[in-house]
Amino acid sequence: MARSLTKRAQDYSKWYNELVVKADLAENSSVRGCMVIKPYGYSIWEKMQAELDKKFKQTGHENAYFPLFVPKSLFEAEEKNAEGFAKECAVVTHYRLQTDPEKAGKLQVDPNSRLEEELIVRPTSEAVIWHTYKKWIESYRDLPIKINQWANVVRWEMRTRLFLRTAEFLWQEGHTAHATRDEALEETKQMINVYARFVEDFMAIPVIKGTKTAGETFAGAVTTYCIEALMQDGKALQAGTSHFLGQNFADAFDVKFTTKEGKLEKVWATSWGVSTRLMGALIMTHSDDNGLVLPPKLAPHQVVIVPIYRSDEQQEEVVKKAKSIKEQLESADIRVKLDDRDTHKPGWKFAQYELKGVPLRIAIGPKDLENDTVELARRDTLSKEFVGQKELVKVVVDKLEDIQKTLFQKAGQYRDEHITEVDNFEQFKEVLEQKGGFLSAHWDGTQATEDKIKELTKATIRLIPIDENAKPGECVLTGKPSKQRVLFAKAY
Amino acid sequence: MARSLTKRAQDYSKWYNELVVKADLAENSSVRGCMVIKPYGYSIWEKMQAELDKKFKQTGHENAYFPLFVPKSLFEAEEKNAEGFAKECAVVTHYRLQTDPEKAGKLQVDPNSRLEEELIVRPTSEAVIWHTYKKWIESYRDLPIKINQWANVVRWEMRTRLFLRTAEFLWQEGHTAHATRDEALEETKQMINVYARFVEDFMAIPVIKGTKTAGETFAGAVTTYCIEALMQDGKALQAGTSHFLGQNFADAFDVKFTTKEGKLEKVWATSWGVSTRLMGALIMTHSDDNGLVLPPKLAPHQVVIVPIYRSDEQQEEVVKKAKSIKEQLESADIRVKLDDRDTHKPGWKFAQYELKGVPLRIAIGPKDLENDTVELARRDTLSKEFVGQKELVKVVVDKLEDIQKTLFQKAGQYRDEHITEVDNFEQFKEVLEQKGGFLSAHWDGTQATEDKIKELTKATIRLIPIDENAKPGECVLTGKPSKQRVLFAKAY
Repeated sequence: MARSLTKRAQDYSKWYNELVVKADLAENSSVRGCMVIKPYGYSIWEKMQAELDKKFKQTGHENAYFPLFVPKSLFEAEEKNAEGFAKECAVVTHYRLQTDPEKAGKLQVDPNSRLEEELIVRPTSEAVIWHTYKKWIESYRDLPIKINQWANVVRWEMRTRLFLRTAEFLWQEGHTAHATRDEALEETKQMINVYARFVEDFMAIPVIKGTKTAGETFAGAVTTYCIEALMQDGKALQAGTSHFLGQNFADAFDVKFTTKEGKLEKVWATSWGVSTRLMGALIMTHSDDNGLVLPPKLAPHQVVIVPIYRSDEQQEEVVKKAKSIKEQLESADIRVKLDDRDTHKPGWKFAQYELKGVPLRIAIGPKDLENDTVELARRDTLSKEFVGQKELVKVVVDKLEDIQKTLFQKAGQYRDEHITEVDNFEQFKEVLEQKGGFLSAHWDGTQATEDKIKELTKATIRLIPIDENAKPGECVLTGKPSKQRVLFAKAY
Repeated sequence: MARSLTKRAQDYSKWYNELVVKADLAENSSVRGCMVIKPYGYSIWEKMQAELDKKFKQTGHENAYFPLFVPKSLFEAEEKNAEGFAKECAVVTHYRLQTDPEKAGKLQVDPNSRLEEELIVRPTSEAVIWHTYKKWIESYRDLPIKINQWANVVRWEMRTRLFLRTAEFLWQEGHTAHATRDEALEETKQMINVYARFVEDFMAIPVIKGTKTAGETFAGAVTTYCIEALMQDGKALQAGTSHFLGQNFADAFDVKFTTKEGKLEKVWATSWGVSTRLMGALIMTHSDDNGLVLPPKLAPHQVVIVPIYRSDEQQEEVVKKAKSIKEQLESADIRVKLDDRDTHKPGWKFAQYELKGVPLRIAIGPKDLENDTVELARRDTLSKEFVGQKELVKVVVDKLEDIQKTLFQKAGQYRDEHITEVDNFEQFKEVLEQKGGFLSAHWDGTQATEDKIKELTKATIRLIPIDENAKPGECVLTGKPSKQRVLFAKAY
C-alpha cells in the first residue's frame, strides 16, 4: 500500500492526490468537484474545529446559523462582492421533481415549480448576514455583534483538487459589526493573529502575516489580512484571511445605529474565515514519501500499539500487556490505538500507520515481555529505540511534545531558506524557477505591474508584509519607486 | 417584554411563535421557510450536539462528511426513497450568474451555465452515501461501517414553522452498513434507545418508543422505529427516528460483500436522525406563559446573577461580591452569567432571564451583604428563598439537579395523564377533541382505516408500542380484529 505512493521528487502533485486518498482522508464523489471527507480525515478536521472554536469563544464570539440560500436580490446588493462570486455560483431555480412521463422510474424537474426568485447557494454569507444584522442593530447598545458560523459553502470552481479547491467545502466564517472603525480594525487584526497562533502552535505550520494587494483583496473588503504558508514544493498557500470590510456592507444593506449622543452612523464590519483547505496545508507541509506526518496535537491517534507474536500463547500475553500499556498512556490523556487484529501482519500494520501519519508507534513482542521494554518508533524521523516500560509514559509525553516542536522548526527552517531577496527581474525568474519559495522583491504598487509579473512568471504577490522598518527601493520589473519589499510566489 | 407574550391558553401556536423570537432562539430569514438560528438558540443546539456526538462515539460511530448535492440519477436510484422526497426538492440547474444587460448592477442566471445533470440539494443522504459505500465495501472485513454526519438538509415544505418544520434544517444522520440482518436490526434498535435516553435524561422530555405503521414509515425503509413526545397542547411530536433499511439500498446501488466463506451477499443498512426540530420539542414541553423553561443540562447559563444597588458605592461592593460568587459557582462547573450592566434595571433583567429560561436566578443587594445571603429564584416553580452564601454552591448544585428531575417528572405526569384508552369511535372523537393527547386504541392494521381516521379526525397513528404483553381486540373504527392497541394523536 504505502509502497505504491508516488515519490514527491517524481511528481509532487500526484504524490499529494494519491496520499489524500490512500491515507483515508478524502476522495472525490459522484458530484463534480465535491469531496467525501472520510472518517480519518474528518477526525483531523474535528480537532481543528474544536481548537478554533475554543479560541473564538475565548475572544468573545458566539456561534449562530444563517441560511444556506441567498436570494439573488440580496446577493447582488453589495456589487463588488456579488461580482467577485457571480461566476462560480450554484443556482437553485426549482423546488420540485415529478415522475418523467417518458421514462419509467425516472424523475424530471417539474417545470411548474420554478422559483419566482432564484436562490444562490452561499459562496460566503456577508449578504444574508448583513441583511439580518440590519434587523438586529438600532443603537450603540446592540454593538458589537461578534458571530461565527460553521457551515458548508459552494463555489463552482472549474479545476478542483481534494481539500485545496473544491466546489463545496467546509469552513467557519466570522462576521462582526462594530460602532467604530478602530474597533473593527482591531477585530480584523485580532482574528488574523488568532489564525496565525492556531496554525503555528496547533498545526505546526509557520506562517507569514501581511495584507493583500488591491487585486487580491476579498471582493467587498477594504483590506484583507492573510497568513501564508510555504509548501514543500516551493509554492505558497493562503491559510486564512481576515477582512476589514469598512462600511461597504452597511452601505449595501443600509445598516445604521444611533450613537450614545443620538447621532445616526453607519456600522463597521469584518469577516474572517478558514476552511478545509487547511487540511491541504497540513498534508503538504509535513508529509513525506512514506505518507502522512501528523503533528501530535491534531493526530486522531497519537500512538499506535502493534503486538507481535508467533504462537497463540504469545498472542495472549503480548496483547494483555499491550492493553495495559494502552490504559497507562490513556490515563495520561494520550490518544492511543491498539491494533490487535490478527487478520493483518505487523509489517502491513507498520506501513499502514506510517501512511496515516501516527506520530509514535509502539511495537511489543515476546522479547519485550522478558526485558520489560517496547520498541518505540517516531514517524517524523523514522528513528527507533527500545524504551523501558516503566519510563514509557514519560518518554511518550516528551516525544510527542518534541515531535510537535520539531515539525514546526523543520518547516520553519525550510520556509526561511526559501525566502530570497531578489533585486532584478532576471534573478526573479531564475530563483522562481530553480529554487521556488517566496521572492522578496520591490514592487511599484500598481495593478499593471502585478498583472504583468503574473503573466510572465505565474507568480503573484502573496502579501505585503507588516513591517515597521520597511525600506523603499526600486520595482523589480519597472524600476519605479517602491515603498517596501513584498512577497511573490507561485501559489495554490 | 415578557409581559407581551401571548398566553398559552389563549393561543398556543401564537405563544410558541412569539416565544421562539422573543427568547432569541431563532427568527425567519429573507429566504422562504429558512430560519436564522440566533446565538442563544444555537448554543442550546450545540449542547445537544456535544452530548449526542459523545453518545454516537461511545457506541462506535465515526463522523464523516458527504456532498450537499445529489445528482438526479443517483437520487432516483432507490425509487421509494426518491418518490418520498421528490415533491420537496430544491434543484440546482445552473452554475453561473452574469450581469443583466438590461438592468445596471443586477445579475441574471447565465443561460449557458446549465448543468448537464440537475443536482438535488440533499433532503437526506442515503443515495449519495450508498453510492459511496459501494466503493468501500468488498469483503466482510470492510463491515460494519458506522458513520454519522452533522449536516444541513433541505426539504421544500409548503407550510413552515420555526424549528418544527423549516425548508433548511440542521441534523445528524447516521448511516450504517452490516453483514447480517440481525446486526442491522440491533443497530436500529440501539440508536432509537440512544435517542430515547438522550431526550429523557438530557432534555427532560419523556418519550414513548415504538414502530411506525407502513404508511408512516420512512420512504425506502423496511421498519421505522420512533420516539414520540407529547406537547402541552396535547399534540404529539416525533422526536427521532431510526430506520431498518433492509437491503433496499444495497439493491438500488448494487452493494455486495464477500462473506468469510467466499459467498457474495447483499449488505444490510440502517439510518437514523434527529434534527433542530428537537428545539421545538424542548420549548413546547417545559415552557410557560412567562417564557422559556430550560432543563439545566442544556441551559447555556444555568445561573444568572443580578446585582441590586442604589448608589455607586453600593454598586461597587455588590458587584464585587457577585463576581466572587460567580467564581465559586464556576469552580463547581456551573455555567454562570453575571449581568452587571447598568444600562438596564433589575426588574427588566428578571423578566428577561425568565423569558430566556435560565434555571436559577441569584439576586444580591446591600441587605444580602449584611446578612451573608442571596435571593435564589427557581425558574420552573417561580419560587424564591434566601440562601446563606456559605451553603450557596451546594444548594445551587442540588437545585439544578432537582430542576432537571422535576421537569422530567412533571412532563411525564402530564404525558401519562394524557394517554387514554378508548374503545369506540364516539369516545375516540370526544377524547381527542376535549382532552387531546395519545389515544390508545385498537386498529385493524389496514392503511384504509388509518387514512379514514385521519380524514375524520386529523389524528394519525403515532406509533405501534413495543409491548410483549399486547392483547388483541377490535378496531375502534371498523370493529375488525386488532392485534394490539396503537397510539393515535394529532401531531406536529
